[in-house]
Amino acid sequence: MLIKCCDCEMTDLRNCTCCRECQLCLSKLYTECCSCVGLCPPPDLDDELDKGSTVEHLKDPIPALFDVLTEQEDIQQRWTTFTYAIDLNRVNKSSTKTFQLGTSIFKNDDDLKSGDVDSNSRIHNCTTAFFSSCMAVGKCKASCKSMGASKYRWFHEHGCCQCIGSTCFDYGLIEPRCLKCPEPTETTFGDQPYSWADNVKAMYQTDSSSFDTL
Amino acid sequence: MLIKCCDCEMTDLRNCTCCRECQLCLSKLYTECCSCVGLCPPPDLDDELDKGSTVEHLKDPIPALFDVLTEQEDIQQRWTTFTYAIDLNRVNKSSTKTFQLGTSIFKNDDDLKSGDVDSNSRIHNCTTAFFSSCMAVGKCKASCKSMGASKYRWFHEHGCCQCIGSTCFDYGLIEPRCLKCPEPTETTFGDQPYSWADNVKAMYQTDSSSFDTL
Repeated sequence: MLIKCCDCEMTDLRNCTCCRECQLCLSKLYTECCSCVGLCPPPDLDDELDKGSTVEHLKDPIPALFDVLTEQEDIQQRWTTFTYAIDLNRVNKSSTKTFQLGTSIFKNDDDLKSGDVDSNSRIHNCTTAFFSSCMAVGKCKASCKSMGASKYRWFHEHGCCQCIGSTCFDYGLIEPRCLKCPEPTETTFGDQPYSWADNVKAMYQTDSSSFDTL
Repeated sequence: MLIKCCDCEMTDLRNCTCCRECQLCLSKLYTECCSCVGLCPPPDLDDELDKGSTVEHLKDPIPALFDVLTEQEDIQQRWTTFTYAIDLNRVNKSSTKTFQLGTSIFKNDDDLKSGDVDSNSRIHNCTTAFFSSCMAVGKCKASCKSMGASKYRWFHEHGCCQCIGSTCFDYGLIEPRCLKCPEPTETTFGDQPYSWADNVKAMYQTDSSSFDTL
């Protein structure tokens, strides 16, 4: 029955009545079996999860504090500030493409102030701060809260932490830009396979001591 | 020296020269000590990490396949589709507030087609699909890829999985809406504290077997 349902040309998915029937025939086995009948690409068994990020909205952000901490370059290099612009005019021009915020116009310029909006050009500015060192996800959240940020993004691969200001739409830049993360020695794992899950767990377990040093 | 640096009125952060000096004096101890001098709120030691999400952009999305799977309600309830509109006009009106995409205008209406853009009203539509059952993060990524989605968001608390279409700006809706996740029994943890890290690790470890049933 399945073969009958899914036995059709699937090159034009938009005009493919059979595709609709096929995905219904696959029923609860859609994810596991759609590639077997040619409806979706085969799964990538080597796919890693370390390219993901953990994101979260933070309660009670303090935009004025975030501005104080990010409006000038941090001479102590505790964090690096990026202010970038999003061009909202691009939205209408690419209605079928993902509009990757944070990758459109990129600037690190003192003349760009966080929160500026030019209503004519529809340029919207956003400021984020990347801590220089790698850290655990709990430390990242606490650190971003202490800066008055509105959101944070913690990159799974090495633990780079980005604090995101109140004028940003999205979760900031999608690539890590932490100055000293990973440290040069961290990129070598020798014969040991790198495990993101072990990394998350190990980092999480150290979180409770984040404020024990006070 | 620290007390001298930070001994000032911090009510108006925008016009607080002392605040700038204070955060520099705190140096590498900013996160740990800013609350001690009144520059930031005290840390919430009960803060949990289970409100976060894991997000990721997926390579080679297939928008036409995602449309086929989401344009009609799934009668088998494998997933629930949400199509919602984002009003870009709101951006200029709230330049100092976070524009939480996915919470502006909410519709689940067959008349709204994914990808429609009305250039006058600047309404932009976005479609996402929530799987009914909870799942591991690896299964979520594989499932969203098999649907042709552009991104996914996996909610840490119970493992609800959201696949995000190519016309969405952000990472979809920020709250989980999985029909059967959590299952009623899952919300009771008895005397055992719920540990997100343990949950992540346990779920991750089952991922490699996602396709073993083929």
